[in-house]
Formats: sequence, C-alpha cells, structure tokens
Amino acid sequence: MQETICALSTPSAMGAIAVIRVSGSKALAVVQSVFRAFHVCPFHPRVAYYGEITDGETVLDEVLCTYFQSPHSFTGEDMVEISCHGSLYVQKRLLELLIERGCRSAMPGEFTRRAFLNGRMDLSQAEAVADVIASQCRSANKLAVNALKGGVSSKIKQLRDQLLHFAAMLELELDFSEEDVEFANRQQLLQLLFEISSQIHTLSDSFSQGNAIREGIPVAIVGKPNVGKSTLLNTLLQDDRAIVSDTPGTTRDTVEEKLAIGGYLFRIIDTAGIRQSADDIEVFGIQRAKKAIQNADIVLFLTDAASVQEQEQDYSSVFEGSSLEGKHVIKIVNKSDLLPSAAQTDAQALYISAKHAVNIALLQQQLLTIAQSYEKNQDVVLSNVRHYQALLKAEQHLRQAVEAMQSGVFTDCIAIDIRQVLYHLDEVIGEVTNNDILKEIFSRFCIGK
Amino acid sequence: MQETICALSTPSAMGAIAVIRVSGSKALAVVQSVFRAFHVCPFHPRVAYYGEITDGETVLDEVLCTYFQSPHSFTGEDMVEISCHGSLYVQKRLLELLIERGCRSAMPGEFTRRAFLNGRMDLSQAEAVADVIASQCRSANKLAVNALKGGVSSKIKQLRDQLLHFAAMLELELDFSEEDVEFANRQQLLQLLFEISSQIHTLSDSFSQGNAIREGIPVAIVGKPNVGKSTLLNTLLQDDRAIVSDTPGTTRDTVEEKLAIGGYLFRIIDTAGIRQSADDIEVFGIQRAKKAIQNADIVLFLTDAASVQEQEQDYSSVFEGSSLEGKHVIKIVNKSDLLPSAAQTDAQALYISAKHAVNIALLQQQLLTIAQSYEKNQDVVLSNVRHYQALLKAEQHLRQAVEAMQSGVFTDCIAIDIRQVLYHLDEVIGEVTNNDILKEIFSRFCIGK
Repeated sequence: MQETICALSTPSAMGAIAVIRVSGSKALAVVQSVFRAFHVCPFHPRVAYYGEITDGETVLDEVLCTYFQSPHSFTGEDMVEISCHGSLYVQKRLLELLIERGCRSAMPGEFTRRAFLNGRMDLSQAEAVADVIASQCRSANKLAVNALKGGVSSKIKQLRDQLLHFAAMLELELDFSEEDVEFANRQQLLQLLFEISSQIHTLSDSFSQGNAIREGIPVAIVGKPNVGKSTLLNTLLQDDRAIVSDTPGTTRDTVEEKLAIGGYLFRIIDTAGIRQSADDIEVFGIQRAKKAIQNADIVLFLTDAASVQEQEQDYSSVFEGSSLEGKHVIKIVNKSDLLPSAAQTDAQALYISAKHAVNIALLQQQLLTIAQSYEKNQDVVLSNVRHYQALLKAEQHLRQAVEAMQSGVFTDCIAIDIRQVLYHLDEVIGEVTNNDILKEIFSRFCIGK
Repeated sequence: MQETICALSTPSAMGAIAVIRVSGSKALAVVQSVFRAFHVCPFHPRVAYYGEITDGETVLDEVLCTYFQSPHSFTGEDMVEISCHGSLYVQKRLLELLIERGCRSAMPGEFTRRAFLNGRMDLSQAEAVADVIASQCRSANKLAVNALKGGVSSKIKQLRDQLLHFAAMLELELDFSEEDVEFANRQQLLQLLFEISSQIHTLSDSFSQGNAIREGIPVAIVGKPNVGKSTLLNTLLQDDRAIVSDTPGTTRDTVEEKLAIGGYLFRIIDTAGIRQSADDIEVFGIQRAKKAIQNADIVLFLTDAASVQEQEQDYSSVFEGSSLEGKHVIKIVNKSDLLPSAAQTDAQALYISAKHAVNIALLQQQLLTIAQSYEKNQDVVLSNVRHYQALLKAEQHLRQAVEAMQSGVFTDCIAIDIRQVLYHLDEVIGEVTNNDILKEIFSRFCIGK
C-alpha cells in the first residue's frame, strides 16, 4: 500500500496563490481533518469547495479544495488539490499540517512516477511531462506536447507490432523446424526487416534535431581576431553580454547565450579569434573555438570588410582541421559601413554591421529558415536521450538479424536478436524497466509533479 | 462594463503547475475559444474539466479548467481558473493567447480590487488579502487571517454604529433646537463619547504591536565595542552574517536580519559598539546604534564578563541620551565562560556565551515571552498603517467633540466633529474612498491577485 504524499506543486516563492497536492488512499481523510468548508461539502469529485484550513485552534488560510477520485486523477490515486494564498508561511505551515496528519513529503517526480506505475501513462509520456515543464520555446513545447499525447509511444508501438508479427512467424518455423517448412517467404521477411530497420533509423536520426530543438540549436560565431564576433553576439542578444574592445584577442573563454527567434531556441556561442599565437591563454581559447565549430549545427564565419581580400585565406586558417560536413556555414562580412555598396559583390556573403545593427534581421531570417527545416518531413521527432540510446541498441540488433538472415544462419539465432530489438523498444515505453532507471528518470523532475 | 482580465496567479518561475486566472463577463467565452475538453464539458460552475489548450493549429498544453459563475467567485465576476503545466513558455504563450482572444493583462491587485468594488469584501478585508500573502510567520498570518475574516471591519463597524446612534440623538436635538429640549442626557452622551474614544484609542494603540508582529519585532543588540554583539547576532541566526574580529569597532553599519522564534518574527539589529571616538566612520556608526535603540522594542544590552565591574558605567554611556520608556531591556553578560559560575551573581542579568552558544535558548525564551505579551488581552490588533492613520484622525475629532461638549459649545459644532469621526471610520472599511487611495492600496499587491 502506497503512502499518501503531499507537495507544493507551484513554484516555491511568494505569489497570489499556491497549489498543494495530496495523493494516496488517505488523501481525502487527511484533508478533511484540516479543512472546514463554509457550505455543504460532500466532496463530489472535481468540484472546488471553499473553506478554511485550521489546525483545530488557529485558522491558517481560506482555500479552495478539489477532490479527484481514483482512478480519474493525474496519479490514478485519490487526490486533493488545495489552492491557498501564496504566502511562504501558509505554504510551509499547510505542508507541515498535512504531514502531521499522516502524509509524507513527495519526492521529485513522485506524482508522475505513480501515474506511470498506475498505468495512467507510459514511460515516454511520463518523461514528456518533465519536457513540457522545461520547454523554453514554441518548437520544444510542440515536441514535448506531441510526446505527452503519445506520439513517440504510438510510433514505437507500431514498429513493435510489426516486429511481433515477424517474430511470430519465426517462432512458428522453429516449432516445425524438423519438418523443414517455411511459413514466411524469406525474401518477404527480409524486406520487412529492412523496412522496420529504416523506420527505426529515421527515428533515431531525428534525435540530433530533436535534441537541438529542445536544448537550442548550437550556432558558433567564428573568425579571425577583431572582426566583431563579440559585437555580433551582443547585437543578436540586444545586451552587453560579451566584453567588447578594439584589442584583438579580447574574448578568451567561449561565451554562450540562448536566444529565441520565431519560436526556435538557439545557443549562440561567441569564440576567441583564430590566429597563430604564442600566448598560452589565447591558444586555449583558440582550441575552444575549434571545439565550438565541431559541436555547432550552424557556423557564422565572420570577416571584416576592411580586409575582404584575405577572406579565402582566413577561411582556410579558421577551419583548418575542422570537418564542416552536415553543418550550415553562413559567410558574413562585418563592418559593411566601411565598404561602399558597390563593393559588396560576394553573392554568397551576407553584408552586415554588427555595431550599427544593419542586416541583423536578415541574419535572423536565415537562422530561422534553417531551424524550420529541422521540423519538416518528420511526423515524430525524438528528443529524449534515453529513448535515443535504446533505439541505437535496437538498430544494432536489427542489423545483426539482417546479416544473420542474409548469411543463412539458423532461425533460432535470428529469433534471439529480434527479442533483443523488442526488449529495447519496450524500454522506451516502459514495458520493461528496472528501479534504477525509474529513479534516474523521475529524479529529473521538480518536486510537486 | 469592465474589461475581461487575465494574469498568472502563481509565482512567475518554472514549477510543476501554474494557475492562470481570467475574470470578467467574457471569461468563459475567451477560455472556450482556446480550450478543447477531452470529455463532455458543460462548464458546470466549480467543476474542473480536463482538456487541451490550442491556438487552432498547435496544441500548447493539457490543462484543467474550472469555471466560477458570477457572483460566486473571488472577484464576483465570471471567472475561469486554468491549471496548466508550469513551463515558462506555456505560461507566457497561454497569456498571449488569452490576450489575442480579447483579454487584457491584469494590473497588480486588480482581481482583489474588483472583489472590493463588487462588494465581495470591504476594503480592510481586501488589504488583508495582501497581508496574508506577505505573512512570514504564525503571528503575522494570524493577524492577517483575522482581518481577512472581517475582525477589524466588524470592530470598526461596531464603533460606527454606536457613534451613529449618538449622532442621531444630536441631529434630533438640532431639529428641535428652538424648543431647547434635550433628548439625550448630556452626561450620558459624554459618557458614550468617552467610551468610544477609549475603544478607538485601544485599537490605534494596538498598531505598534500589530506592526511589530507583521514586520518583525525590532531587537537592538547594543554595548561597548568588542563585547561580542556580532557574534551574538551570528549565533542567533546560526549563520556568519556579520563580520566578526577581535579588533574593537569592526561593525560600522547596523546589520539587520529577520529571525523567527516560536511563530514570531524578530528583526535583530547588530550595532556599532558605543564609546568615545574621534574616528569619523565610527562616530557615524555610533549615531546609528543610538537610533537603533530609539526604534527598538527590545534592547539587548551586552557586557563582557571580563569587565563586569564596569557594567553600570557602560550602561550610562551606552544609553546616554536615549529614552528607554516602553522598551524591554535585557541585560546580558557575554563570554560567561571567562567567569566562574560562583561569580555570576547578578540576578537581573542573563549570563551567556555567544561564541559557545551557552544559554542562547534562554535568551530566545525571553524574546518569545515578550512577543507573546503583544497578543494578550487584545481581541483585535491593528496592523495596517492606513487604518492607523484614519483612526488617529478619528481620535483627534473625537477629542475635539469631547472638549466641545465639556465647554458647552453649540450642538451643531459637535455634530461636525462627529461626522468627521464617522468619515474616518468609514475610510477604514472603504465606505468612503477615492480613486487615488484605491490605486495606492492595490498597487501593493502582486499581479494575479
């Protein structure tokens, strides 16, 4: 029998109102022991009742109480939500009172964990709850709400059902193996495996995009020293985030800030100017700049209008040793005010002035267009690293199964790989789990959810 | 016709859930335009319905919506409470959506202001809402909840009714003034005025205590340099708040921290050691220490066990020029570990060691006892400065009325003063107000209340 738990579900700060949740079989009894309704209060489910909280002697606050009857509640258990005034004292004292009357403080994510354990949602939906809460922009919110509504789950379940069908065929063959019959056309089976494999690959492939949408698409600003990289960062942020000076080599550590454009989140990373240097600190900075290029999805390669003829040479020295495969590189000529328009002849380049905010909107538009391409042609996008890892393992076993079939290995060996694939798909939706994984997942949550 | 307003009512931060309130005649229509219920949703009042928020294209979140029908709501208007996931993005976007559909952002306190304007509560109760939210300890919460439940209002209304009776008598006399009759025995009238006056005085007198309970009872730690005042502050707070050193004169500015003991809030103020000094900065510090004594309700006079024989001399130099009337002075001998118990002979003094936390619990007990005496023998305690000022004016006019009666002035002059008293009593409960006062009162509120 689960203990009855309680927690503050709204942020722990002073506000107009706060909501405290109680969940478990004793939820209603505990709340009834401290709540005195002002009118008739039969605690019909989902109805808000007005009254006061009292410890028997002193009235603590006037509140609204709403009862949610098992199983029709978030956790699936009996639940009560108390909406009280948002005073820190009231919040603290009300929780104390509930604990005095038999509740226990909920651990982070414990409400959602119970919702999962009671079958109210599968594991990928439970994880989506945390993602909805953490979402910082439209696109991340859309991903998370889609997962919450079961988008990822239903895709995985669909793949699993196809694979189960395949496995059933195999098992049937095993049962009749002595008679050497083939219930399924081998070629058709192989075809089915290819198809499932390709779908899983598409899904796992969507992870880097899903992750970028969730955490922000990494954009590195790189170039030679003193071309205005920090000024560009500040202009994009409309803030004096990075220190700017005329001295080349001012930026040493990479400076990273989040920026939302048109519902997408970007992580803009300002880097040290790349040049030959004997200065130790500067060398460290240049190493970090190279690493930023490597980790970026979008690279803003900045040059200075004053030295536009050296651009090609700059390009090779800045990107020396870096692979740009799969990256979007935007060539930008800064300080365009130093260059007459007639001289702005490079059709590949974007001419801007970071200092005077010229053509910054154009740059933002280019970033936005790239971000939008992330969402295209994808019905389901993966954004959870645990799901991604499970799918990678599933892919690996699928590959082994395909190879085994192609090389004519015994059917029972193939069946083992297929069972492994099913196992890893089930991991995503929580059909198979162990306690450590659950602990890990729900400890990411805030308290009260 | 009032506009329909919306606001985030829970603290503006990430949390498990957030609550957004909508109030006004269009509240239900606006919410219905963005809410898609998962089940039948007739929006019965006070019932929570589960569904999703959508802008028509994208689903933003899954939420609970509860409708409160006018006049049975906090504001007295139609209201809807939306309980959504506590993501910053969801909060922001949902408010944007509601505004797109015809709401306006609520100003601070606007919900409570409407509750007042719609007669759901009088003005002193509306102000108590802000006090409940701001309350930081048991005693302040008790005061505020008492005011919220109408404690202050009903006391004021009771005084007002008595005075109305008195005024009616006077007016009657005025009507028949040419016939020179006395409907009320003058002596009895005077008696009644004295009684009302005394009750108003008791109430206004309770303000300093009410204010102390609300803001914290001011406790000044004073004494010669280097007797351990900062160490005592730190020990009381169980924190390294003030800088401590063996150098006399380390503390310059007064250092103030709040401390709750047994449900009461104290403002503990550490001060510069008081001595003759030629150092400018030190002299400023000593002036502040003197001022702290003046503003304190409780003064902790600290001496050093090593120089216990100079205590009387210290006392006069520390308190030179300060009036201790109405203050509680606690004599404390610090560094008691330097003094054998046999030598701890002053029955008036409390022997402690701030450094080794000896007898600190005893000191806390003494502070608590004083705080408890604040609440005794008072059915209603005033804690609102606006009420206090109104009552002071009422008192002044009452005094004038009494003097006028005693010196046999014309009845109509007395009637003018009595009307003024009634006016100021009505100010407290909001029977008379002007827009500026309302603005001032409700701007103290947080948004969403």
